[in-house]
Amino acid sequence: MATKVIKGGTIIAADRTYKADVLIDGEIIAAIGADFSGDEIIDATGCYLMPGGIDPHTHLEMPFMGTHSTDDFDTGTAAALAGGTTMVVDFVLPGSDGLLVALQDWFQKAGKARTDYSFHMAITSWNKQVFDEMPKVVERGINTFKHFMAYKGALMVDDDEMFASFLRCAEIGAMPLVHAENGDVVAHLQQKLLAEGNNGPEAHAYSRPPEVEGEAANRAIMIADQAGVPLYIVHVSCEQSHEAIRRARAKGMRVYGEPLIQHLVLDENEYKHEDWDYAARRVMSPPFRDKINQNGLWAGLATGSLQVVATDHCAFTTEQKRFGVGDFTKIPNGTGGLEDRMPVLWTKGVLTGRLTPNEFVAVTSTNIAQILNIYPRKGAILPGSDADIVIWDPRAKKVISAKTQKSAIDYNVFEGFEITGLPRMTLSRGTVAFKDGEVLAPTGNGRFVEREANPSQNRALSTWKELTAPRRVERDPKNIPAGV
Amino acid sequence: MATKVIKGGTIIAADRTYKADVLIDGEIIAAIGADFSGDEIIDATGCYLMPGGIDPHTHLEMPFMGTHSTDDFDTGTAAALAGGTTMVVDFVLPGSDGLLVALQDWFQKAGKARTDYSFHMAITSWNKQVFDEMPKVVERGINTFKHFMAYKGALMVDDDEMFASFLRCAEIGAMPLVHAENGDVVAHLQQKLLAEGNNGPEAHAYSRPPEVEGEAANRAIMIADQAGVPLYIVHVSCEQSHEAIRRARAKGMRVYGEPLIQHLVLDENEYKHEDWDYAARRVMSPPFRDKINQNGLWAGLATGSLQVVATDHCAFTTEQKRFGVGDFTKIPNGTGGLEDRMPVLWTKGVLTGRLTPNEFVAVTSTNIAQILNIYPRKGAILPGSDADIVIWDPRAKKVISAKTQKSAIDYNVFEGFEITGLPRMTLSRGTVAFKDGEVLAPTGNGRFVEREANPSQNRALSTWKELTAPRRVERDPKNIPAGV
Amino acid sequence: MATKVIKGGTIIAADRTYKADVLIDGEIIAAIGADFSGDEIIDATGCYLMPGGIDPHTHLEMPFMGTHSTDDFDTGTAAALAGGTTMVVDFVLPGSDGLLVALQDWFQKAGKARTDYSFHMAITSWNKQVFDEMPKVVERGINTFKHFMAYKGALMVDDDEMFASFLRCAEIGAMPLVHAENGDVVAHLQQKLLAEGNNGPEAHAYSRPPEVEGEAANRAIMIADQAGVPLYIVHVSCEQSHEAIRRARAKGMRVYGEPLIQHLVLDENEYKHEDWDYAARRVMSPPFRDKINQNGLWAGLATGSLQVVATDHCAFTTEQKRFGVGDFTKIPNGTGGLEDRMPVLWTKGVLTGRLTPNEFVAVTSTNIAQILNIYPRKGAILPGSDADIVIWDPRAKKVISAKTQKSAIDYNVFEGFEITGLPRMTLSRGTVAFKDGEVLAPTGNGRFVEREANPSQNRALSTWKELTAPRRVERDPKNIPAGV
Amino acid sequence: MATKVIKGGTIIAADRTYKADVLIDGEIIAAIGADFSGDEIIDATGCYLMPGGIDPHTHLEMPFMGTHSTDDFDTGTAAALAGGTTMVVDFVLPGSDGLLVALQDWFQKAGKARTDYSFHMAITSWNKQVFDEMPKVVERGINTFKHFMAYKGALMVDDDEMFASFLRCAEIGAMPLVHAENGDVVAHLQQKLLAEGNNGPEAHAYSRPPEVEGEAANRAIMIADQAGVPLYIVHVSCEQSHEAIRRARAKGMRVYGEPLIQHLVLDENEYKHEDWDYAARRVMSPPFRDKINQNGLWAGLATGSLQVVATDHCAFTTEQKRFGVGDFTKIPNGTGGLEDRMPVLWTKGVLTGRLTPNEFVAVTSTNIAQILNIYPRKGAILPGSDADIVIWDPRAKKVISAKTQKSAIDYNVFEGFEITGLPRMTLSRGTVAFKDGEVLAPTGNGRFVEREANPSQNRALSTWKELTAPRRVERDPKNIPAGV
Repeated sequence: MATKVIKGGTIIAADRTYKADVLIDGEIIAAIGADFSGDEIIDATGCYLMPGGIDPHTHLEMPFMGTHSTDDFDTGTAAALAGGTTMVVDFVLPGSDGLLVALQDWFQKAGKARTDYSFHMAITSWNKQVFDEMPKVVERGINTFKHFMAYKGALMVDDDEMFASFLRCAEIGAMPLVHAENGDVVAHLQQKLLAEGNNGPEAHAYSRPPEVEGEAANRAIMIADQAGVPLYIVHVSCEQSHEAIRRARAKGMRVYGEPLIQHLVLDENEYKHEDWDYAARRVMSPPFRDKINQNGLWAGLATGSLQVVATDHCAFTTEQKRFGVGDFTKIPNGTGGLEDRMPVLWTKGVLTGRLTPNEFVAVTSTNIAQILNIYPRKGAILPGSDADIVIWDPRAKKVISAKTQKSAIDYNVFEGFEITGLPRMTLSRGTVAFKDGEVLAPTGNGRFVEREANPSQNRALSTWKELTAPRRVERDPKNIPAGV
Repeated sequence: MATKVIKGGTIIAADRTYKADVLIDGEIIAAIGADFSGDEIIDATGCYLMPGGIDPHTHLEMPFMGTHSTDDFDTGTAAALAGGTTMVVDFVLPGSDGLLVALQDWFQKAGKARTDYSFHMAITSWNKQVFDEMPKVVERGINTFKHFMAYKGALMVDDDEMFASFLRCAEIGAMPLVHAENGDVVAHLQQKLLAEGNNGPEAHAYSRPPEVEGEAANRAIMIADQAGVPLYIVHVSCEQSHEAIRRARAKGMRVYGEPLIQHLVLDENEYKHEDWDYAARRVMSPPFRDKINQNGLWAGLATGSLQVVATDHCAFTTEQKRFGVGDFTKIPNGTGGLEDRMPVLWTKGVLTGRLTPNEFVAVTSTNIAQILNIYPRKGAILPGSDADIVIWDPRAKKVISAKTQKSAIDYNVFEGFEITGLPRMTLSRGTVAFKDGEVLAPTGNGRFVEREANPSQNRALSTWKELTAPRRVERDPKNIPAGV
Repeated sequence: MATKVIKGGTIIAADRTYKADVLIDGEIIAAIGADFSGDEIIDATGCYLMPGGIDPHTHLEMPFMGTHSTDDFDTGTAAALAGGTTMVVDFVLPGSDGLLVALQDWFQKAGKARTDYSFHMAITSWNKQVFDEMPKVVERGINTFKHFMAYKGALMVDDDEMFASFLRCAEIGAMPLVHAENGDVVAHLQQKLLAEGNNGPEAHAYSRPPEVEGEAANRAIMIADQAGVPLYIVHVSCEQSHEAIRRARAKGMRVYGEPLIQHLVLDENEYKHEDWDYAARRVMSPPFRDKINQNGLWAGLATGSLQVVATDHCAFTTEQKRFGVGDFTKIPNGTGGLEDRMPVLWTKGVLTGRLTPNEFVAVTSTNIAQILNIYPRKGAILPGSDADIVIWDPRAKKVISAKTQKSAIDYNVFEGFEITGLPRMTLSRGTVAFKDGEVLAPTGNGRFVEREANPSQNRALSTWKELTAPRRVERDPKNIPAGV
Repeated sequence: MATKVIKGGTIIAADRTYKADVLIDGEIIAAIGADFSGDEIIDATGCYLMPGGIDPHTHLEMPFMGTHSTDDFDTGTAAALAGGTTMVVDFVLPGSDGLLVALQDWFQKAGKARTDYSFHMAITSWNKQVFDEMPKVVERGINTFKHFMAYKGALMVDDDEMFASFLRCAEIGAMPLVHAENGDVVAHLQQKLLAEGNNGPEAHAYSRPPEVEGEAANRAIMIADQAGVPLYIVHVSCEQSHEAIRRARAKGMRVYGEPLIQHLVLDENEYKHEDWDYAARRVMSPPFRDKINQNGLWAGLATGSLQVVATDHCAFTTEQKRFGVGDFTKIPNGTGGLEDRMPVLWTKGVLTGRLTPNEFVAVTSTNIAQILNIYPRKGAILPGSDADIVIWDPRAKKVISAKTQKSAIDYNVFEGFEITGLPRMTLSRGTVAFKDGEVLAPTGNGRFVEREANPSQNRALSTWKELTAPRRVERDPKNIPAGV
């Protein structure tokens, strides 16, 4: 196979920064060092080399009211590459046919992907079929199961179902994920707001206050602890849930939290915009919060109580958003972000000193690769790793605009952001997939990344839970009365 | 009517301690001062006069599996008087006939009471009848509604029902109470433990870990906050729920917590006793916890994050407890405490310096009278108050023993406790109801105490919630697109 | 002596609200009830009767750079009466002659007072004389000792001195107070800011960030705990110190916190005003904080982690403030508030629902009377209490303005605040001291209020500390080697 | 140079676990992979390869009362190697001659070292010489400065000195360390205990309660934050200081905490042993705590609020301990641990599931290498790293006993611990330094490891502090009055 050498760059890893060249042999990083020769030389002088970003939270071509989210695996992963991201993890949402049938659907949709990908399987109901199919899903290389505590009447599961599923995860070495919002309360607040004439996009935020998220996070954490399984909380947007996570971690619980790039930099005032479209385009769940909450999320990323920055990329057009005119509960939930996650995080995080460059790599790539048990195949620039590399030009600048984006939608929630630090080139498994503003990877170039179950955090937790399990008091039979 | 003068004592109120005589005219305190004459003189030299205790948490003659808890309003209130308590609040548990029918049952049962009494109404399901009857219950003088988050398949309500009921409470100026334990998780843990052969009384404690209580407390707090209503959490037994209360209060939420005397002084090792009967007699929910949790509860009482000490008196005989031989889930939940609450709290709390005498009065009587909106008719020694007075002899000693107790059951969970500080005499509405070890008040002497709705804490909260309610963004119609 | 009857009003006490008339006999409340006759009838129809306010934190005629704060005991207490406050507690700041000499000075200054008064004694250095004089100060009726952790080179004491003084307080049944700011760090920050050209009033706030206050509060709490004595923290302005207080209280420590009315309603933006005078007039320590901190203080008052609202009234004229032109460290620290404390707190607290009327009374009068051990002589409307009563007209309105105030200074930090709820009349020990906008009490009308040592909180804490004191391990002498 | 190949082992790194062989060329790891040939083959079948441990907290040959701690750089580092530790960082304690002179002394003492080593420089007083010498110390390769908040009258510095030194650290890109205990309070408590006849070793623990540590940690954190510099807190022993660290980290502050292996597994009951010698041998500061605190430390290591496990190895013989017979304050503070740190942590941490093997590597080696800015030269098994490798046999067992230890002292605080998991071999810079129970590295084999200043955490923090620094309000001169 052809070899490439990336020369002159500085590698930023989660654990260190150093100057070195990278030798790529086919799809794999063959060596890191100096004085390599290769079939192709890529000059990275003045640039940083970082492991390609991993976005563990996307909804590409997600079914919705007879249509679907507008970015599919084609346009979505094009946007990803343009932003330095080389792998996405999408959510399989099963219908009544069960997990495996749905999985097939998603494999089919993902055929168009330009980047590597994986799936989380959603558990949206509980029955024997689900119970039986979960280990088969694991055999297919998926070790994470998503639970929606909101979206009542649709995706939501209750505590009983959640506990059953978490226990099953513990048994099969998988990890549960949760969307943490109390769906019962959200449903009540929605009805109350509509009844009071609050039908605009701002009411979306009113119907999902931080307390509702914090409560659900706290509940999921308790259930995971009782089930003896680690937990990953998606789109942590506020101090209420972050505090629940910190409290759990202070007790040694293995709980992970994922803020979204949107929540780190956009606030609730967006929903008060005088233009309905502007506000509706920002509708996602959880909604944007205030500056205090943003500060908390940044602090968590720097000090390790939060581990991953994702996007929840679920891109609906303005046209689709308008389903909800007159009734905010019908505005499709979701925004874009795949293309902007890394540049925005670099600009607002690294350049301000909130994050070190190494922390940037950790939260965009390395940590999630470890959590998902695909490290160091992904998430690292190491010999033997997939050659998913972003060549980052710290001096490149742009102003974010929907007009120039790769995403298929007609707006961008970061419109007007002034960015410093952008991918000059993105390599996906050794191929130049994005370069100088152009996506080169063809649709269908991506591959499914299998993820093994039972990573070290599961094994350690199981050992500890076994060691501290309740022990029966052995009583002399003469001390036990006859029953009634 | 006849007058009485209590002479020579020192009055301990929640807010001060002072020497004064008390003039009682019939059922009412007529005056506090000196040099009174009256038809009867009671010498209280060397004693403290304190407002009669109020126990806001009892289950007298509670229906259970075709029988009922053994202490009824007769024996239960006899025990109360012997311990200085002059009022109990019992829980009405409605069946399928609705709230008002159940209320009649409870009025009938309470006919035997020797002390004054009131009720909390339980909301154990949600439908139009319940919604409609709630204000009628309030009209009958009951301003508190209890919600069980545990006892799945029986009393338990889910979040949806709880939110609906809390909203209704807010509308009618009532206050919700919760039994905070996650019933779904408890049910799972029970099955898991039984399946593992853990069927003894200790498994009762294993099935209801502190985390399960803390989670539910946190959830109820959020729901109350969203519904805009104060909240009272019964039998707070551990730091997990206490911490949730503190966190809520730190945000200004009007949340109250009630530890039980049992949880303050008994710990989880009780369940590991080699004698099955011994352990089973201590089975109650929540179960006893460890010393750390006890320390937390004491601290809360001293500094005001917890307000009330109750008993959850629900006395089952050893015979009844034995329903659960071989299956801990069938052990009837409940212990006694009405007679011991105040002497044990005085001995373990005041004599150690953990509480001041004034704090003792606050947590046994005054605070709950204020919370229930019957202050200063109850909970105070003030002119105009009901003459519910305990004459407390701080030098009196006894060793607690089931043999000498007034309760109808055959054991006492405080057996062997050495007490210093006991009622010499208890007056109930001006009548000497207990004296020198003997209950003098006849059965039927008690009266129902009506409690008005909409106390100041409800009104203040409603004002604040209205002031900070979500406001619709008024958009120029030209900025709102046509819907889809 | 002459009797007065206040008729038709509604009494608001810390523990209840009720309609009743008040009979005053000379200086004392003789009775509460109905149908009284008296020499003088005061019509309070439509008004509330509340115990006169107590401001435990004033600096009247405080010595400063050869001059003194402009409000003295004459004008200061006139302002107090106009705002419903009938007692002030001022700080005695001893010089090198010791505590008793300074106390005499303060008695002399206080001769002009129109309201009753007491003193806190400051401990500004530590030596045998101080140690010896402390119990003599207590004998003079002063049971509180103030410690400045800031004002390095002037009033500040270090940890060693503070621990010694706290231990002494424990021995003599007194309570320490602290001004909690780390004086070393403040001094460093002042120098750093001046060196960087930050010399305006806003730099005053920069030099005293919340962290500096929180640290000192935390330290004082630890020292009080080790010394075994309750602690009162003056002018708690921020979450950092409030959180330290909550944390201490969560452990059962007897720690009290006092926010100022200024910090509840004014924020740090005041210092950024383009007019130097405007900003400088707001200079006080701690400085105003942001809205988040304000919310925390309000929550603390409602839920009891903070107990008292004071003013730190230390009124310097604009002329005096200008000492600090070009060097913010020379701006005299202090603002007014005595006249505005209660009306502002009522308007911003009670009318918004943040506080109930009873909580208002608790935090303006009753709580501090209890803490200072003068309850119920002060802080209550009870038979036997001093007839310090404010007749509060909840419909009265005004706009706060320096032009109409009683204070001797030329501005008011609450200028322009729209107030609803004002004293119609203020009675001081039975005399109408303020009425319809006019102060009637003559200068010199006030009396010193003696405060006894060793209140119940001290006694309880001492009992507990003795019970849990470290115990020597008794070793068999054969297990102890010979020393080296 | 000679090459070695370690074959057949499984490498455990902080970020992953994988089977690979290691090629060592001289002192350096040349490559990781398979099929290497070399001059010497080391069979590691069935073993783990981990980066050699780094103990960042030792006091070898520490001067004390005319003598010195008994383990010097010779015996101390022999013990280290036997336990898998290949680098120690010792504390230079300067006298009146200044930092550079003291540094020379330490270099001389360290000449005997068998492992690599570095130093922290203690700042024990503040003056111009110290200020001037600090950057020179940095030039010598030392980027950390230790501050003692305890040991009053000896090593202790006050807040003023600490702030000055922290600011200086910020300027020169160094990191301050603190021993966090309030020395003033400790000194008071010591005198109080002695006065009460509490003179045994248990009084050492009484004199240094957790609150005293928590307070100082909190204070140091605030000072570091105001000075704009990261902070490392040594020997975190309790929740009080750990909580302060968590609170700081929750705000995004870059604060690190180091528990000791002793505090993780030994508790305060050790001091109550009936044998004086037994108890005195355990005397160190901070003292051992209770199980609750131990649980907190373990949780912190697993979830990242604590980063490093050290020993504070400062080994005094029983004879030396007996200086303190009759006066606990004279018992020399310190215990051993260098040989036992890794085996005890593995047994009590990894085998129980409290830590994953990767977390074990992180907290014994990798994290501190990163914090000290010597990663990946140290703390990693990577090409280019120093070949400091421990070959860990997870099946090897022993019972810890002073009789068989390498340390020069006559007891071991872990005596009787049953260990599973031990070094089979330890390589130090490519040389087999310990093998099959024998230390092979000769005295003098160690080298000083230079550490560069200004690591990424310092740079990021400086950027953020600059961005958020106080800004002067620019006022129109006409708005600034003339001064007085």
